[in-house]
Amino acid sequence: MPDMEDSSDLYDSYESEAPAWADHQAQHLEDLDTVECLRRKIKYYFMNPCEKYHARGRKPWKLILQLVKIAIITIQLVSFGLSNQMVVAFKEENLMTFKHLFLKDYVDGGMDTYAVYRQTDVYDHIEYILKQYGHLHNITVGNHEYEKNGGVYTPLSVCQDFYRNGTIYPGNDTFEIDAHVETECFNVYPMYDPSLREVLPGFELHFKRMLSVKLTFVLKAINLQTVRHRELPDCYDFTVIITFNNRAHSGRIKIDLENDVDINECRDWKVSGACKFTEDSDIFFDTMTIIGSILKIDIQTKVLTSYDVCSIFLGTGTMLVWIGVIRYMGFFRKYNILILTLRAAFPNVIRFICCAGIIYLSYCLCGWIVLGPYHEKFRTLNTVSECLFSLINGDDMYPTFKNMKQKSNLVWIFSRVYLYTFVSLFIYMILSLFITIITDTYDTIKQQQQSGTPTSELQKFLSVCKDLPNSGVYRLDENNGCFLQCWISR
Amino acid sequence: MPDMEDSSDLYDSYESEAPAWADHQAQHLEDLDTVECLRRKIKYYFMNPCEKYHARGRKPWKLILQLVKIAIITIQLVSFGLSNQMVVAFKEENLMTFKHLFLKDYVDGGMDTYAVYRQTDVYDHIEYILKQYGHLHNITVGNHEYEKNGGVYTPLSVCQDFYRNGTIYPGNDTFEIDAHVETECFNVYPMYDPSLREVLPGFELHFKRMLSVKLTFVLKAINLQTVRHRELPDCYDFTVIITFNNRAHSGRIKIDLENDVDINECRDWKVSGACKFTEDSDIFFDTMTIIGSILKIDIQTKVLTSYDVCSIFLGTGTMLVWIGVIRYMGFFRKYNILILTLRAAFPNVIRFICCAGIIYLSYCLCGWIVLGPYHEKFRTLNTVSECLFSLINGDDMYPTFKNMKQKSNLVWIFSRVYLYTFVSLFIYMILSLFITIITDTYDTIKQQQQSGTPTSELQKFLSVCKDLPNSGVYRLDENNGCFLQCWISR
Amino acid sequence: MPDMEDSSDLYDSYESEAPAWADHQAQHLEDLDTVECLRRKIKYYFMNPCEKYHARGRKPWKLILQLVKIAIITIQLVSFGLSNQMVVAFKEENLMTFKHLFLKDYVDGGMDTYAVYRQTDVYDHIEYILKQYGHLHNITVGNHEYEKNGGVYTPLSVCQDFYRNGTIYPGNDTFEIDAHVETECFNVYPMYDPSLREVLPGFELHFKRMLSVKLTFVLKAINLQTVRHRELPDCYDFTVIITFNNRAHSGRIKIDLENDVDINECRDWKVSGACKFTEDSDIFFDTMTIIGSILKIDIQTKVLTSYDVCSIFLGTGTMLVWIGVIRYMGFFRKYNILILTLRAAFPNVIRFICCAGIIYLSYCLCGWIVLGPYHEKFRTLNTVSECLFSLINGDDMYPTFKNMKQKSNLVWIFSRVYLYTFVSLFIYMILSLFITIITDTYDTIKQQQQSGTPTSELQKFLSVCKDLPNSGVYRLDENNGCFLQCWISR
Amino acid sequence: MPDMEDSSDLYDSYESEAPAWADHQAQHLEDLDTVECLRRKIKYYFMNPCEKYHARGRKPWKLILQLVKIAIITIQLVSFGLSNQMVVAFKEENLMTFKHLFLKDYVDGGMDTYAVYRQTDVYDHIEYILKQYGHLHNITVGNHEYEKNGGVYTPLSVCQDFYRNGTIYPGNDTFEIDAHVETECFNVYPMYDPSLREVLPGFELHFKRMLSVKLTFVLKAINLQTVRHRELPDCYDFTVIITFNNRAHSGRIKIDLENDVDINECRDWKVSGACKFTEDSDIFFDTMTIIGSILKIDIQTKVLTSYDVCSIFLGTGTMLVWIGVIRYMGFFRKYNILILTLRAAFPNVIRFICCAGIIYLSYCLCGWIVLGPYHEKFRTLNTVSECLFSLINGDDMYPTFKNMKQKSNLVWIFSRVYLYTFVSLFIYMILSLFITIITDTYDTIKQQQQSGTPTSELQKFLSVCKDLPNSGVYRLDENNGCFLQCWISR
Repeated sequence: MPDMEDSSDLYDSYESEAPAWADHQAQHLEDLDTVECLRRKIKYYFMNPCEKYHARGRKPWKLILQLVKIAIITIQLVSFGLSNQMVVAFKEENLMTFKHLFLKDYVDGGMDTYAVYRQTDVYDHIEYILKQYGHLHNITVGNHEYEKNGGVYTPLSVCQDFYRNGTIYPGNDTFEIDAHVETECFNVYPMYDPSLREVLPGFELHFKRMLSVKLTFVLKAINLQTVRHRELPDCYDFTVIITFNNRAHSGRIKIDLENDVDINECRDWKVSGACKFTEDSDIFFDTMTIIGSILKIDIQTKVLTSYDVCSIFLGTGTMLVWIGVIRYMGFFRKYNILILTLRAAFPNVIRFICCAGIIYLSYCLCGWIVLGPYHEKFRTLNTVSECLFSLINGDDMYPTFKNMKQKSNLVWIFSRVYLYTFVSLFIYMILSLFITIITDTYDTIKQQQQSGTPTSELQKFLSVCKDLPNSGVYRLDENNGCFLQCWISR
Repeated sequence: MPDMEDSSDLYDSYESEAPAWADHQAQHLEDLDTVECLRRKIKYYFMNPCEKYHARGRKPWKLILQLVKIAIITIQLVSFGLSNQMVVAFKEENLMTFKHLFLKDYVDGGMDTYAVYRQTDVYDHIEYILKQYGHLHNITVGNHEYEKNGGVYTPLSVCQDFYRNGTIYPGNDTFEIDAHVETECFNVYPMYDPSLREVLPGFELHFKRMLSVKLTFVLKAINLQTVRHRELPDCYDFTVIITFNNRAHSGRIKIDLENDVDINECRDWKVSGACKFTEDSDIFFDTMTIIGSILKIDIQTKVLTSYDVCSIFLGTGTMLVWIGVIRYMGFFRKYNILILTLRAAFPNVIRFICCAGIIYLSYCLCGWIVLGPYHEKFRTLNTVSECLFSLINGDDMYPTFKNMKQKSNLVWIFSRVYLYTFVSLFIYMILSLFITIITDTYDTIKQQQQSGTPTSELQKFLSVCKDLPNSGVYRLDENNGCFLQCWISR
Repeated sequence: MPDMEDSSDLYDSYESEAPAWADHQAQHLEDLDTVECLRRKIKYYFMNPCEKYHARGRKPWKLILQLVKIAIITIQLVSFGLSNQMVVAFKEENLMTFKHLFLKDYVDGGMDTYAVYRQTDVYDHIEYILKQYGHLHNITVGNHEYEKNGGVYTPLSVCQDFYRNGTIYPGNDTFEIDAHVETECFNVYPMYDPSLREVLPGFELHFKRMLSVKLTFVLKAINLQTVRHRELPDCYDFTVIITFNNRAHSGRIKIDLENDVDINECRDWKVSGACKFTEDSDIFFDTMTIIGSILKIDIQTKVLTSYDVCSIFLGTGTMLVWIGVIRYMGFFRKYNILILTLRAAFPNVIRFICCAGIIYLSYCLCGWIVLGPYHEKFRTLNTVSECLFSLINGDDMYPTFKNMKQKSNLVWIFSRVYLYTFVSLFIYMILSLFITIITDTYDTIKQQQQSGTPTSELQKFLSVCKDLPNSGVYRLDENNGCFLQCWISR
Repeated sequence: MPDMEDSSDLYDSYESEAPAWADHQAQHLEDLDTVECLRRKIKYYFMNPCEKYHARGRKPWKLILQLVKIAIITIQLVSFGLSNQMVVAFKEENLMTFKHLFLKDYVDGGMDTYAVYRQTDVYDHIEYILKQYGHLHNITVGNHEYEKNGGVYTPLSVCQDFYRNGTIYPGNDTFEIDAHVETECFNVYPMYDPSLREVLPGFELHFKRMLSVKLTFVLKAINLQTVRHRELPDCYDFTVIITFNNRAHSGRIKIDLENDVDINECRDWKVSGACKFTEDSDIFFDTMTIIGSILKIDIQTKVLTSYDVCSIFLGTGTMLVWIGVIRYMGFFRKYNILILTLRAAFPNVIRFICCAGIIYLSYCLCGWIVLGPYHEKFRTLNTVSECLFSLINGDDMYPTFKNMKQKSNLVWIFSRVYLYTFVSLFIYMILSLFITIITDTYDTIKQQQQSGTPTSELQKFLSVCKDLPNSGVYRLDENNGCFLQCWISR
């Protein structure tokens, strides 16, 4: 407030000073004009595009350019996303197919519990895989084929990892182990009806020392459905890896099937009957930023292996661009207060998150140590954090209560106290305080806006000039002289 | 505030002016009376029905009529809804029946994963459908029958879509394809124990080129259960379409069963033993609005195919009518403040939703591109939006965290950062700001009501007249002269 | 505020009046004393038990009695609840047993989809039930037995409901039906290895006319586990009813198993080896209210059939008693403000719920009509309301979005608009307004308490007396004269 | 406020007093200096570490030590947690293995419904267990072995609990029972292909009197996977107990498998081929507090049976240590207000929880009694509380509505009223009041901070001294004289 008076004093002094020295008056009036010019010029500089249009009739080219850029980036992202969606779907469906073809008695959704517990079952599962692999093209309804390397099919490899040596007698609580891991591999060529004994005569699993068995083979396929979208089909190499995992030696061997995909352009192709094919790498115009284009080309031709890094850059970039759009909303007064509130409350929210974060962390550590053995969700520090964060934000609590194993009364009571206090503390106190912080900030900003206090030296300087944008005084032709004079007099 | 003083000045001037010019006094007093008359008349006009009743004893016919209209519309809607509920249930149960009868090894709830992966399985499934179709009436416990067309059963048709020509060698990364799609159809008449080879001698599936196989047939049924509700039974034509979808050529052929329903009045019927039948199209009285009636009749006779459009109109209409009822609550002062708050806060909320929506959109785009390949819920832009919107409003977060596939560490970390920041930002900052906006609006409106500031010219004019509704001055017999005089003097 | 001044005027007048008329002074002073007495007496009357103890040393007998009563009622309720819990568990386990024994291929949790679709399956299921019933005691691991009536086993009855007459030709869209329902019953006595043809030679199901088949039989059992809790075992009569429901004639016959339970005291029993048996009907002490006792005795002896009505009375009663306890918390100032806020905000919250309820209702109706055919949760008006209410309060939204069937694009878009607007409106605006209402009420009450404005005539009268409870002036021996005088002077 | 004026009076008096008595002036000035010294010294004492550093350049050793301590405790906890995680995983996987090996037709996740209902099934299950136990090492893929006791395998024991005597005739509603429980045991040695008749010739189950059958045996195993983490493998004794529970005599015998684990150091071992083995009990340095170390050693050597007690102490301890860290955040002014708000609001929140708790309790009791028989979640008082608490905090409500069994209309309506009112009351009123309490506290504290009112005598005394920490006056060398003088003059 006192600052404001100072500023008007300063202004008054310009005017009251003038009549004092009559001969300096002309010079002074010229100075005053110059100051006024400067003020108006600066004020114009800080106008938003709408106001600039009103002030001088300048078309908001920059704004339009910005919007066009955002549109282009978004369209590109969406087109890339849509094409990517199809690739992902094809990969997923092939994975499902391989599970159904190569895993014995596999049921959809049962991968979590797909494991074997008996020695004969392990042999049966391996034999089943070899058999299915052997007459794949009589079975599959897709267009899968073996990989060929110089006219010869590349074989399926069966590899067994085991400790080099080891005699384990749990009955006596004694063991002798050589912790070096050895690997034994066999190659199996596609064959119509193999039995394990025939194909791998010397093959035996040393269950007590065994760490894992891995079956690896490559299948090739072509994604034909892109033909209907007027894109060229791609050729896929699926490397299927089936792992029998016995690292825990707990009597449970978990079986896992993964497929790594390698996408290439097909070597030789001929498509007829479709109206027009876009080469996929056209789209749109030439003024793309260089990095964007390269990324896009790379991804489109699907030769880039570091797909994840790219997508993170692309995604985060687009996100930031869009968040940047909010700036333009600040041009409108009613929007401005909301955005200002969010921005002003941000540091306080972050500060408070730090405080609450420490309490949160302490609950995480405590829960992990005490409840870890009794609840799936408290098994690792990471899942504890996710579970607690979800609980605050409205996750189902009852299952968390219910699935707590009730072996020990002490732990059971602890778990109840732990959950009730955590939820009460965070939902009733900490979430409420967030609301309070935001409300407080909003009130502060609203009062600031209503009192209209200038908050910086520049604002004080400009506050003297009250000309509205459409008053006409900003028009270049009229002011030209003024600015010219302003420049000359300097 | 200054406006208010003006208005009282205006009023004072009427009274202070009068004694000044004595000869104009009589005329002036008459004028004053006229103004007072007008004031009272306008005030009466803006009274709510209760006050009007107190002022002149006028019964609130309009209000009663409104309430009756709402009651009628709601009753009609409910009766239509209840009758519709039965139709939907019948359709649903028939769909379940067809799935159990025609899909081999079908298990309830398993439609998501109902697919085949082996060539022989495809043939088996088709043969099973033909067989079940062949002796349907010995199997079904419902009253299904084949459609007859001129005394002859309409046949089941088996159609195969495939690329006209195509040689695909994934092993060599080469292919040659003619993208024209050809369709090959066979008709099968109901037959007791068919084998595929017998019924369709030349039938062969070209798996590599095949896009889909479709089996289509029509079954007729009568919904007898309406008899017990004293309605006439309807005759249903179910067009059952079983699709083997191989468009992806991924090795997985998804099988889908749909039934399109066509509901007709039965041609010839005789019902006895039931007390009384309503023809379903009576109901109630004649002053129905024309569109409403037509719609209702159309839907009741079930000949309207565009059922969805109708239901959307009907539903939205009723919704708006009911929301209109809120207006009447504004008659009571305590309710009024709540409604006013909602209405006044609305533009600000919408404005803020715009701002938040941009941040939201940016998160959607980013999540779609980066997490799409790793999480079911981020597969399409639409599901991303639904997933994030649900997360804000209290959806289970833990499964979203958990189901993120952990193939790439980078993406895994990104997903954590993404979800933690999104939830924190939206729940702790943005939802809190909504509360702040509402609170602020409420305070503003409460202060306005307490200070009683008139907000429009009309209110200022009326604010002079302080007569209460039940003061008697509004009674028509007393005021008649006044108003008459008022009209004459004009 | 003006009222307050009035009250002090009134008070001043007593004192200023006195010196005016000297001869009336003595009388007046006596009057003043009387008024003071009355004031103190009334003030004492409104004191809370703690203050009364401080004022006159009176022990808070009433409060103690109240607390004892609450304790007794709660203990009784808990003991009844615990005993009831065991009965419910026994009933539930028997129901599971009957499902496993009598329903062919029954799997736990699959009752929703337990249905048959083929004619032979219906016969098979009935035959299976008869067979299992025939050699029940060789199968069951519980102590189930057939009911005997005069030395003869009561038979199992098979009843078929069907329309008296009916010829239905869906193929021609014609039907002729006599809507009278006839019932045909057969009795089957337990028999070792029956085949349906043997046992029920003339039994045939008229699928087209059939409404339902019902198999009913009675099994008796004794709940021995109460022996270990030193209670007498009860004898149970389970009436098992298996219903094949074909009312829809949709081709799907739903099978349902219910058991009605009748609990009696066993007729003849002898228990040894257990230390001491409480007869279960001891209770506790004699001052129980009459209704309570009768209820309890009735329920304990388990002869009361209207168990539900009782439990609702008992439960609601105990709830109200406990809520009444809150009154005592109002004795403490800090608690009082919270309770007062809740009480004061209540009418406004209810008012607002009315307004919001109308919008809510309009959404319910609209959703029911439009989305009913496309989503399970929108099938009936009741489930729509439950679903929407749950959505507001943090239910999983994503499944609601996801399970919307995507047949019609129009409905799909409508469903999105519907859900997004509903959730936004209710969570962002209406829930926020609740918070505002409560906050506003709290502020009002806090200011009232701080300004200490008396709000009623009585409070104004009492506000003059500022004696603290422990000041001693309330002691009976000292005041006795005063009060006596007070009574005499009247 | 009046206190503040007093304090300034006190201060003024020092200065105004001085010129009054000229000869006492020197003495007085010295006194003033002493007071000033003391003030500064105390003020320094209450400074936070940062300010102390600025004031005198003192390094914040204590703070650093604290942080180091916290780091050590957390690191230890994390290392212990990680090692514990592996143990828990090994136990869990073995439990899964035992279930798959010994329970007939066991399916993952189906333990809830794993039960038998037929007499022959009970015998079959027992025979299956004996058979699997007999040739365990030909089956298992883990390194399980029988326990040996003096060269002889310890046998599996089969124990049957039953009432000593009992004749139960549910058909007549009569029974005669001797409530003494007898136990009959058989020992079975591992045998290749036993049939129950052979192995246990006299074995028979008295189903009507039987309470339970228990099969107990011990298996030994070694957790080899720790070898890869450079830790010594541990030897495990699993005591497997399979219980057939018939206590309810409801016709359903629930089967349960538990394994108690005993972890020992292996007796004799030899590991080669791994680079370096940490003995697991090293880690870090010697200044550990004694209790902590002992606990850690005990747990690390895994001989401590009371693992749960330890983990609760460890977990809670670490939690408290971390929460203590928040104190240090109070050093920063912006953080301080948040922490102060939480602390100041705490008593009010607790008070309010008491009030709300009573309403909550009344709902719990009522729901338990009335809805207990009709809903799983309302079966016990504990689950009712958990269910309602979860509902308030955003649990899925729809399933709770939906799973309410609809047998009785009265109870159905009650359940709806119960749930709607409970949720409305708690979410709309009580949660909102929490927010109000926090907001109110925040406002109070903010105003207090802004008005800067000193709140204690000490603060008043210190408030006179306005020297900033980095003003230099606190430097020890400068003040030394002052403090010395201060001490001397006393």
